Amino acid sequence: MPMPSLGAGREFDRIRAVLAALGDHAAGAGDDCAFVPSDPGVIALSADTSVEGVHFRREWLSLEEIGWRAAAGALSDLAAVAAEPIGVLAALVLPDDLGEPETVRLMRGIGDVTASVGGKVLGGDMSGGRSLAIGITVVGSCMSPVRRTGAVTGDSLWVTGSLGGASAALLSLQAGAAPAPAARAVFARPEPRVQSARWLAGRGARAMIDLSDGLAGDAGHLAAASAVRLRIDIAGLPVHPDLVSRVARTGESAVALAAIGGEDYELLVAMPAEFDERNAAEHLHDTGVPLTRIGVVEAGQGVSLTEGGVSVTLRSFDHFA
Amino acid sequence: MPMPSLGAGREFDRIRAVLAALGDHAAGAGDDCAFVPSDPGVIALSADTSVEGVHFRREWLSLEEIGWRAAAGALSDLAAVAAEPIGVLAALVLPDDLGEPETVRLMRGIGDVTASVGGKVLGGDMSGGRSLAIGITVVGSCMSPVRRTGAVTGDSLWVTGSLGGASAALLSLQAGAAPAPAARAVFARPEPRVQSARWLAGRGARAMIDLSDGLAGDAGHLAAASAVRLRIDIAGLPVHPDLVSRVARTGESAVALAAIGGEDYELLVAMPAEFDERNAAEHLHDTGVPLTRIGVVEAGQGVSLTEGGVSVTLRSFDHFA
Repeated sequence: MPMPSLGAGREFDRIRAVLAALGDHAAGAGDDCAFVPSDPGVIALSADTSVEGVHFRREWLSLEEIGWRAAAGALSDLAAVAAEPIGVLAALVLPDDLGEPETVRLMRGIGDVTASVGGKVLGGDMSGGRSLAIGITVVGSCMSPVRRTGAVTGDSLWVTGSLGGASAALLSLQAGAAPAPAARAVFARPEPRVQSARWLAGRGARAMIDLSDGLAGDAGHLAAASAVRLRIDIAGLPVHPDLVSRVARTGESAVALAAIGGEDYELLVAMPAEFDERNAAEHLHDTGVPLTRIGVVEAGQGVSLTEGGVSVTLRSFDHFA
Repeated sequence: MPMPSLGAGREFDRIRAVLAALGDHAAGAGDDCAFVPSDPGVIALSADTSVEGVHFRREWLSLEEIGWRAAAGALSDLAAVAAEPIGVLAALVLPDDLGEPETVRLMRGIGDVTASVGGKVLGGDMSGGRSLAIGITVVGSCMSPVRRTGAVTGDSLWVTGSLGGASAALLSLQAGAAPAPAARAVFARPEPRVQSARWLAGRGARAMIDLSDGLAGDAGHLAAASAVRLRIDIAGLPVHPDLVSRVARTGESAVALAAIGGEDYELLVAMPAEFDERNAAEHLHDTGVPLTRIGVVEAGQGVSLTEGGVSVTLRSFDHFA
């Protein structure tokens, strides 16, 4: 429900403070529901929850970043189907130590990332509770979504941006070190690839998924949904430079970590065979986001991962084999 | 996101078990978003969270009832604007002691109440966490919603069903006693007044709100939104019979408790002056739900509560004065 419907006394004050901070990042409020006009087509919806201690730690991120990241993860699901964001509903469970200023900061992060992809905060809900939890429902529209199911033999596989930036930041944070700034930005303020998704949909994208759990795992979902095999050579992955530097000291494989690391929120997309590097350059020009060819779609099932042509098995990959 | 998109290994097993239990109470799953066709009109959306220890106690209710009640509270917001339910997205935060069978029971309650008003479970999300929390986003459609803003001087005020049943149950539970069965049913399995709302919208309802926080408080929201005064004589409230019996021992005023008690999820509606008791009888015939005239809309602001013509002030009313 829109924020003003949620309780009495101080709760309403807090809602007013949030609405004041959101400004035109919020849509009208004050009824039992939020309303969005609907036109012929499809409404896309997705819900995602970020829980303190499970999905984030407060000591690693500012409250604005926690809000941004929670909403970005949900908005990425709209990107994954090439929907145009309408907005988000934010349901907050707030422990006692988070008062009005802290709530405003959380909601500012949610409002900022939503506005960055053209949406508004449509409504929300606040409850007390023992741990901070942020439930985000995203709402978007499209004439016809790009689903996971449309990849066919001969399609080429591409990823947006680079992989492993969030993992590089996480490795540093877990070691008690400050992450490199670029990696930290990927981790703290991921950018949902809404613009790329709509660009790719316009060029005939056949199937798409966002990389929330990591390429190796998420590729398996796309393969299963399309009933095809994805052949990916990880030697060609666009590894985030901070992950390369980070693992230079430990001797771990940067490409392997980039292939299994989650939360980069890049897109994996199957494009028709005629889509090529010239088109990818055009995508970079139009969106500012690189697009890298990483494999092909074959008859079969599952994901065949190679590194320089040699078959590899990755740690997190067994779940999806 | 639809349930199958949410994690690895045992999480997918749990999702499959939930989908099997929901059967045709769930819509298609397996992509990054849920999709609903959209037609010209308005999509209504609302989010609501139920947190263990704040909104319910596990020892008072079965898991099916906890799920039902959480979703019913959110679906009631669709009723409040006379929207037709499309479905719900359910975001669960599950502590370690709630495994697959418990998750299935929770989701069965959510699916049952959603199906009872013609909707489906469209998607959801599961996370671990310290306390059980159930975030429900409801989605509905309508050509033009009934809002809180449309009440005008001379309208009559009506409520559906009876008031105070949930309070009667709560008083018993808090005293460690078993609630009377009818009161317990109101508390544990409230029925969102979707059918009544659409019937009333068809008869020209001007403004509506659902009574989640109690009549005295929620009437204040409607008065403020419509910029009118609501004059309500609480002597005429349809008090739930179990509340009357319950307070017979203590000497408290049943009508006063019925006026301030929350969570009955009945509707307060402003109807044009010509709407009368004959129409209310027709409503009862068509929906099975009584409709009781409780007051009038006047010029002014706020809520004027009387009991047999004498002005009364109720405990919870000061917040909204």
